[in-house]
Amino acid sequence: MSDWPPGLVSSERLTLSIDAMGGDGAPQMVVKGIALAHERHPEVHFLVFGDDSRLSPLLEQAGPAVQRVCQVHHAADAIRNDAKPSAALRAGRKSSMRFAIDAVADKRAAGVVSAGNTGALLAIAKFVLKTLPGIDRPAISTYFPTERGETVMLDLGANVECDADNLVQFAVMGEVFARHVLGLKQPTIGILNVGAEGAKGNEAVRKASEILQASPLPIKFSGFVEGDDIGAGTVDVVVTDGFTGNIALKTAEGTARMFGVFLREALTKSPLTHLGALLARPALTELRMRVDPRRYNGAPFVGLNGICIKSHGGTDEIGFANAIDVAIDLIRRDFNERIKEDLERLIAFQTEPASAAAS
Amino acid sequence: MSDWPPGLVSSERLTLSIDAMGGDGAPQMVVKGIALAHERHPEVHFLVFGDDSRLSPLLEQAGPAVQRVCQVHHAADAIRNDAKPSAALRAGRKSSMRFAIDAVADKRAAGVVSAGNTGALLAIAKFVLKTLPGIDRPAISTYFPTERGETVMLDLGANVECDADNLVQFAVMGEVFARHVLGLKQPTIGILNVGAEGAKGNEAVRKASEILQASPLPIKFSGFVEGDDIGAGTVDVVVTDGFTGNIALKTAEGTARMFGVFLREALTKSPLTHLGALLARPALTELRMRVDPRRYNGAPFVGLNGICIKSHGGTDEIGFANAIDVAIDLIRRDFNERIKEDLERLIAFQTEPASAAAS
Repeated sequence: MSDWPPGLVSSERLTLSIDAMGGDGAPQMVVKGIALAHERHPEVHFLVFGDDSRLSPLLEQAGPAVQRVCQVHHAADAIRNDAKPSAALRAGRKSSMRFAIDAVADKRAAGVVSAGNTGALLAIAKFVLKTLPGIDRPAISTYFPTERGETVMLDLGANVECDADNLVQFAVMGEVFARHVLGLKQPTIGILNVGAEGAKGNEAVRKASEILQASPLPIKFSGFVEGDDIGAGTVDVVVTDGFTGNIALKTAEGTARMFGVFLREALTKSPLTHLGALLARPALTELRMRVDPRRYNGAPFVGLNGICIKSHGGTDEIGFANAIDVAIDLIRRDFNERIKEDLERLIAFQTEPASAAAS
Repeated sequence: MSDWPPGLVSSERLTLSIDAMGGDGAPQMVVKGIALAHERHPEVHFLVFGDDSRLSPLLEQAGPAVQRVCQVHHAADAIRNDAKPSAALRAGRKSSMRFAIDAVADKRAAGVVSAGNTGALLAIAKFVLKTLPGIDRPAISTYFPTERGETVMLDLGANVECDADNLVQFAVMGEVFARHVLGLKQPTIGILNVGAEGAKGNEAVRKASEILQASPLPIKFSGFVEGDDIGAGTVDVVVTDGFTGNIALKTAEGTARMFGVFLREALTKSPLTHLGALLARPALTELRMRVDPRRYNGAPFVGLNGICIKSHGGTDEIGFANAIDVAIDLIRRDFNERIKEDLERLIAFQTEPASAAAS
């Protein structure tokens, strides 16, 4: 391990903190992911938290170039996948996950990536990093392919129950995400509901819709959208509570997988369809890549006072490297500062709606 | 119009009530759907409610065989698609929908099919037919293809908010559906949640899970399932509240459509992939048929004291005929009696758990 001085963010240098013990294939998958990310981002340095005796040989294998940008910090514990968030927060003080998050709080790293236990990561990150001013609860967000480009969705499971204010905050954060990460000029926002009409749905979605409609923020609120609008890409940002969002996202993943299975079964039925599939292989490969979940791996916890990216636990090194890309991207775009600016405007409006609307 | 005497259900005769004015393509789509269903079920007679001046020429076109099994009943009004359920209930007393449901309450028909406004249909059906003993709220249910066969899901939008008792009742009704309609011997049941562990989710799903785990009913409760378990077909019955269920079902439909669009785009990119698609056409047609929503059209409102089937409003005659098939199937299988039997056992347990469990 080289002992380079810790640097945070500059054009030549950016330091990320990595929980090396989270995820089904950890720590091997994580180190391989770092190696892949290093090829794309040679300027990024990694504080790698985990079991030193397992990490050192893996980094050895990864070669001197990767070793040069990695600094291993031993952590005796790892948060188990089935640990309850509250227990992880209490008992996980010497875990790789906690150490990795601490590094962001201590400004030794500009962001953290973990493929570990989602609930634990959220609880520890919220406790250690705190939320941004004006945000009650952070949300898990991601973006994925649709018929009409890419769409951001949040919350994906951080908050099982949400009130209207939570949803409004998610809308603001999602809009910033779509603008600064997806590069959309004027992203449209919709609230997920069981119908497009104003009278449908529960109180939280109806009230959130009213607040957003009255908001002086320069955002394009399109009202309610339904489940099939997600795949259609009707809006750029889909806002929902964590219970519905988690289930919708996983339902979409499951349906895409089912469709893939059906397609394979259909194409391998006869010699003729087999030949057809062979000729169409480049197209089918392209299709598979287009919906490859690894390309969309890396869900930011938005609303935290620090960049924290959750990688899917079942991903491989390609997916983990993508989660690292997401972290770097958010840091380079000063994502949290952008959210803060928009939130300040929203809070000003909510405290004094008349004057804010008039100004 | 022949003036056959109204008969309800026998091996030679079954009478259905049809709201001919609901759905985007009504009444033409409805009459064509009846004609298609007639080919498969020559013993079924139809009470057709709607605008006589529009229905008569359509039935004329459909030919004498169809006319012989149809009896048109004029209804001056039709419930609009954007009507609120409460307004439809109050002001829609002379609508085709109301008349069609009345016919079931009056035992002139054994069941009703409508492609009209879902909320209105539910409100009127609940008011006119009432719920089965032990059922607080009816649920919208359907079944659809998965990797491992077909899965029943409910509620799909009748109840935006549900408590644990509602979910338990849905589980019982869904189990009866899977057993008697899909013909499964011992269907497995799962409650949709954001994680498989017992501590996850909201209070309603956790409590419903506890009740089902303790239940003496001979049902196979598998605990919690997640969104991706829907497409995987992990369980035969997926139980959820109407908000989540509606969004999950529509998300799955939207994802399947998106996948179809991506597949078409990929296959038409080059002459070679075009040729491949041509050779694989039988397979692709089969795939399309396998996920064709028309084949799964017709969602029963379960828990009502009468058979009431909601057809998708945007469907065509093939889909509407399928909804008629569903109605006939439920009637022939004495579906509501089966639900009543299982509910009585559940209620006996909930009132006196100790003695019921001991018996």
